Amino acid sequence: LKAGIINVTGYAGVELARLLHGHPEAELTCVTGRSGAGQRLAEVFPHLAPCDLPIEPELSPVDFAFSALPHASSAEAIIPVLDTGAKVVDMSADFRLKDAASYEQWYGVTHPAPHLLAEAVYGLPELAREAIRGARLIANPGCYSTATILALAPAVKEGVIQPRVVADAKSGVSGAGRTLALTSHYSEVNENFSAYGLDGHRHLPEMQQELVALNPAMGLQLTFVPHLAPMTRGILCSCYGAIADGRIGTGAQGQKTLLDLYRSFYAGEPFVRVVDRPPHTKHTWGNNVCLVYPTADWRTGTLIVISCLDNLVKGAAGQAIQNMNIMCGFPETMGLDALAVYP
Amino acid sequence: LKAGIINVTGYAGVELARLLHGHPEAELTCVTGRSGAGQRLAEVFPHLAPCDLPIEPELSPVDFAFSALPHASSAEAIIPVLDTGAKVVDMSADFRLKDAASYEQWYGVTHPAPHLLAEAVYGLPELAREAIRGARLIANPGCYSTATILALAPAVKEGVIQPRVVADAKSGVSGAGRTLALTSHYSEVNENFSAYGLDGHRHLPEMQQELVALNPAMGLQLTFVPHLAPMTRGILCSCYGAIADGRIGTGAQGQKTLLDLYRSFYAGEPFVRVVDRPPHTKHTWGNNVCLVYPTADWRTGTLIVISCLDNLVKGAAGQAIQNMNIMCGFPETMGLDALAVYP
Amino acid sequence: LKAGIINVTGYAGVELARLLHGHPEAELTCVTGRSGAGQRLAEVFPHLAPCDLPIEPELSPVDFAFSALPHASSAEAIIPVLDTGAKVVDMSADFRLKDAASYEQWYGVTHPAPHLLAEAVYGLPELAREAIRGARLIANPGCYSTATILALAPAVKEGVIQPRVVADAKSGVSGAGRTLALTSHYSEVNENFSAYGLDGHRHLPEMQQELVALNPAMGLQLTFVPHLAPMTRGILCSCYGAIADGRIGTGAQGQKTLLDLYRSFYAGEPFVRVVDRPPHTKHTWGNNVCLVYPTADWRTGTLIVISCLDNLVKGAAGQAIQNMNIMCGFPETMGLDALAVYP
Amino acid sequence: LKAGIINVTGYAGVELARLLHGHPEAELTCVTGRSGAGQRLAEVFPHLAPCDLPIEPELSPVDFAFSALPHASSAEAIIPVLDTGAKVVDMSADFRLKDAASYEQWYGVTHPAPHLLAEAVYGLPELAREAIRGARLIANPGCYSTATILALAPAVKEGVIQPRVVADAKSGVSGAGRTLALTSHYSEVNENFSAYGLDGHRHLPEMQQELVALNPAMGLQLTFVPHLAPMTRGILCSCYGAIADGRIGTGAQGQKTLLDLYRSFYAGEPFVRVVDRPPHTKHTWGNNVCLVYPTADWRTGTLIVISCLDNLVKGAAGQAIQNMNIMCGFPETMGLDALAVYP
Repeated sequence: LKAGIINVTGYAGVELARLLHGHPEAELTCVTGRSGAGQRLAEVFPHLAPCDLPIEPELSPVDFAFSALPHASSAEAIIPVLDTGAKVVDMSADFRLKDAASYEQWYGVTHPAPHLLAEAVYGLPELAREAIRGARLIANPGCYSTATILALAPAVKEGVIQPRVVADAKSGVSGAGRTLALTSHYSEVNENFSAYGLDGHRHLPEMQQELVALNPAMGLQLTFVPHLAPMTRGILCSCYGAIADGRIGTGAQGQKTLLDLYRSFYAGEPFVRVVDRPPHTKHTWGNNVCLVYPTADWRTGTLIVISCLDNLVKGAAGQAIQNMNIMCGFPETMGLDALAVYP
Repeated sequence: LKAGIINVTGYAGVELARLLHGHPEAELTCVTGRSGAGQRLAEVFPHLAPCDLPIEPELSPVDFAFSALPHASSAEAIIPVLDTGAKVVDMSADFRLKDAASYEQWYGVTHPAPHLLAEAVYGLPELAREAIRGARLIANPGCYSTATILALAPAVKEGVIQPRVVADAKSGVSGAGRTLALTSHYSEVNENFSAYGLDGHRHLPEMQQELVALNPAMGLQLTFVPHLAPMTRGILCSCYGAIADGRIGTGAQGQKTLLDLYRSFYAGEPFVRVVDRPPHTKHTWGNNVCLVYPTADWRTGTLIVISCLDNLVKGAAGQAIQNMNIMCGFPETMGLDALAVYP
Repeated sequence: LKAGIINVTGYAGVELARLLHGHPEAELTCVTGRSGAGQRLAEVFPHLAPCDLPIEPELSPVDFAFSALPHASSAEAIIPVLDTGAKVVDMSADFRLKDAASYEQWYGVTHPAPHLLAEAVYGLPELAREAIRGARLIANPGCYSTATILALAPAVKEGVIQPRVVADAKSGVSGAGRTLALTSHYSEVNENFSAYGLDGHRHLPEMQQELVALNPAMGLQLTFVPHLAPMTRGILCSCYGAIADGRIGTGAQGQKTLLDLYRSFYAGEPFVRVVDRPPHTKHTWGNNVCLVYPTADWRTGTLIVISCLDNLVKGAAGQAIQNMNIMCGFPETMGLDALAVYP
Repeated sequence: LKAGIINVTGYAGVELARLLHGHPEAELTCVTGRSGAGQRLAEVFPHLAPCDLPIEPELSPVDFAFSALPHASSAEAIIPVLDTGAKVVDMSADFRLKDAASYEQWYGVTHPAPHLLAEAVYGLPELAREAIRGARLIANPGCYSTATILALAPAVKEGVIQPRVVADAKSGVSGAGRTLALTSHYSEVNENFSAYGLDGHRHLPEMQQELVALNPAMGLQLTFVPHLAPMTRGILCSCYGAIADGRIGTGAQGQKTLLDLYRSFYAGEPFVRVVDRPPHTKHTWGNNVCLVYPTADWRTGTLIVISCLDNLVKGAAGQAIQNMNIMCGFPETMGLDALAVYP
């Protein structure tokens, strides 16, 4: 399988290159870059020396393309690639929202390819594996969205919590990308912790869309607050919601019921591991696993679910390859079986 | 004023020594240590070279003592000091809970000095300044408690939120102290983020006690979840609660009402600053300020309050000196006016 | 004393503002900024809330000015300020090199004010206190230079080492300033260590100039290699040179001779502390102290001197205020007596 | 191939488990632990969930064993394993020094198995590949030693530098292991930089032994100074030596001669990459590559070589597997071809 990366020069793009280099069936044959065109990949990213390729201005024909462009420019770049017959995973937000009006409201631009929205599949394999299998265009979920949806999906689907839910997420700085900004400047971020996006983060509507679809009757009201943590990789999301009356029980029995509910929901999933102790982002560093820990504050009847993952892998490039594997009929874990690098 | 520190060798103790060294009225005349007795302060802590003192096994007579011992041993050590006529700020949890039974339940030991509980004052100056002024024994609040109570006090006092409240707190590693533990081991904590204490953190009952006292009728049900962030100093606490019907308004008007409510509550406070943008822990690094940012998710009607402080200063040693200043009739900001060290 | 800061919006400028805020004799009355003009200081730097001032486009008349502009523009800005009769500390490199040709060679621009070079004093108080006292224009030393010169000065002055000397320096990222760059981008710098400037760092000629002046006959040949460490503040410099025959002795006796030589050289210095164990940058975090540890590899007869300091304090803003104190007849330690913030 | 790890519970051991899990020919069948015996691997190290094994008190029969025990206890544990016919890579220092007296001097204990010293091979494949191929017992080099020897070997072998050489090394904290110590306590190490081991680090004699063997006539006098950097993984070593007269040339021509000399020395090596820009430890994070950058301070005629690697991979577990591959006739890069994880 000839694979290409559109805009390899951001962190999601470069992580795709790393993972594809180790994939037994895909061969990375072309990379493009908004910056860096004309240089070789290994000049800009010395760790990629063994998969050195020239950074091209335009994508050559490939069987499968990943776009790591920002929103709007991504959709524009994808249209001609689809026309060549290639399958595409789009890592931008362009095809995540089903509704072009909502896209325009949150992203401030008119959607460049609204005719593709109907066929694009929101590529969270744990919720949409069959649709992904038949798709030619995947909207790869955002990193925050993956952590939040995987944390809440079982509880929402089963309706065991009341509508009002808070997701308090903490992300490493690589989630903000490789573009220079004061908020990613080392001396500003190191030894610092802050909240941001309090007037509405762009990942919120896709979380709502996907969670509401699991249980429209529940009337989910999701509050999402992202925070910036002084580390490079990792997202940990802590979700809170009042337990619906009588649905879980309390204490040790309630804990068992919760774990059973979550384990049953994720039975057989290769990349979601329901754990029985608070997980650490470090246990997912560099690999495609999402750890989910459901518990509760039994005193107040509050469900607490902690999820964590590597924002550049299960939150971006790893999930993109997982989608490629499903779309191409490869084993779903192919090229994604490396353990986390610890410590 | 002759001041002494019981158990100087932890991070709260050593921070007290740093701050007392710069205090115009207090003179640090004696320090004791569980470890390190027989050594000089500057041998163990080279940054304290200019206030070098021998680390003694027992406290010499002083006018004012700070105890930085762990709970239980702190109360025991304080009894004879009070008998000498000295005033005392206890930085342990021993005198924070009014109820000896609750203490025993959360700390697992019988209270060593229940006869002192009635007179001890929970030393959060913003809520109890007058009581502190007349006290001879202060229970210095915990770091998480200070951040959480200051974030929620105005909203609870005014009853603008519904009873179910979540406090999601993120702390730097120094909060876990200088005692060796795998959870403070560099390679385990660096590039890592995790939740802990999910079955009940010991700071929870003091938060509840103090907040409930502000508005007993509200029926507060507080869920508190602490997290460990890869940084040395700083706590950021994100609090969430459903806005009670019609109490705040929405949008820009609601935001103004909220800010006014908080600014009015903290009017004149030297160490609480109500800000109109999300605060950063780094803006409090090394000083005694607590920043509080009240806002809301207006879509869902959820109050969000972000507070942050330096866990070793406003969360421990700085607040202890603020209490000393009040108890001794010094200006409340004396020795505490240093700006945060940034970046 | 009315003091002003030209270009307050970099890390050296903002650190000056912090330190001046706590200075008993100087009052910060005006700050200018290349960026940020028109905003208030506290908007851009929330930790400076208590010393809020508007960021002006031009300096108002002051008694004493600090320039934190980059080289070339700094000299240009200083000329009219000197003409008002104000004294000036220039934190740029513009007046550090005595020789305009050398300046042009290393900085690639013609010197904007060569007529001021003769009167400008290289402001390392430990080596030039008397000249500083009478000066109206001080060239504040670079951060690497301060660490390296203070480490080597006693050994060079006394001629106890052979000419070939290596200074291997490690700096925190704040030394690279607040200007955005990929080399200061969090995800690039965190968990990373690298050398740079291997074809000649601009601090080298001022180190050589000052060290050679201490002992021209020695024929010093200095190799200087800076490294970037994943931390915000701090420089540690490790210096190596072959011990000249018979000058120090060996083993415990040699160690004592070395310590005596260094302690004698720095006797009475308020901000240089000769220590007898390897120092940590953390022991200088936020204060104006330089720690110096002289020792040797006695097997090979190699002198090793380790020095460390806070690059923004003794390496920049603190030293600038130390120079101001000397120039204005204030006690040299005024406003600079805060202990390091630890941990 | 059945492989076992003696004392899996330190960082080198757990990294071996991670890498062996991905090795196509070796199967990890048994792990032992000084601590943790009786628990399962995944309980102690959640990232190893997919290669879960019980932690045994004693090693079962295997074809190949790795010992990650500390020195002295390692040699003792290895004797019976060799007797079963298994091949062994010892990651401790026990078989690195050829001379039992030197071992006793540096490690303070009598060598537990001096009869094995003659046959043990110092397992640096780039210098001893053929001897490794035929060995049954490998002394796996120390992390500092690997970085220093690989940096200096070409220059020493070719005799292009004078005898007096300084190696200034900077290591991440994981090199100090998983055993609790104040020097690995997060709050002490974070935002800190320090030198240590100034009276002689235990890796020095093995560096000298191996480098002297390359060119006994040169009379190498090596000074080695390790430093602790605030990061988890990575070693960067900066080496300095005066260029022998006329051996390299100067300027651009000298640079080319140097690069050619180094590239020729390491031609065909799969895990040493001679680069033409200063390397970053981050470019080796998690993989088995050592980057080497030779250059010079042409003004003073000083050779500078910068090398870097991941202390737990090429500096420990990865090199151990590289040795296993050679000893067992597998392709040398088998299981070691993952790219570095960046950023």
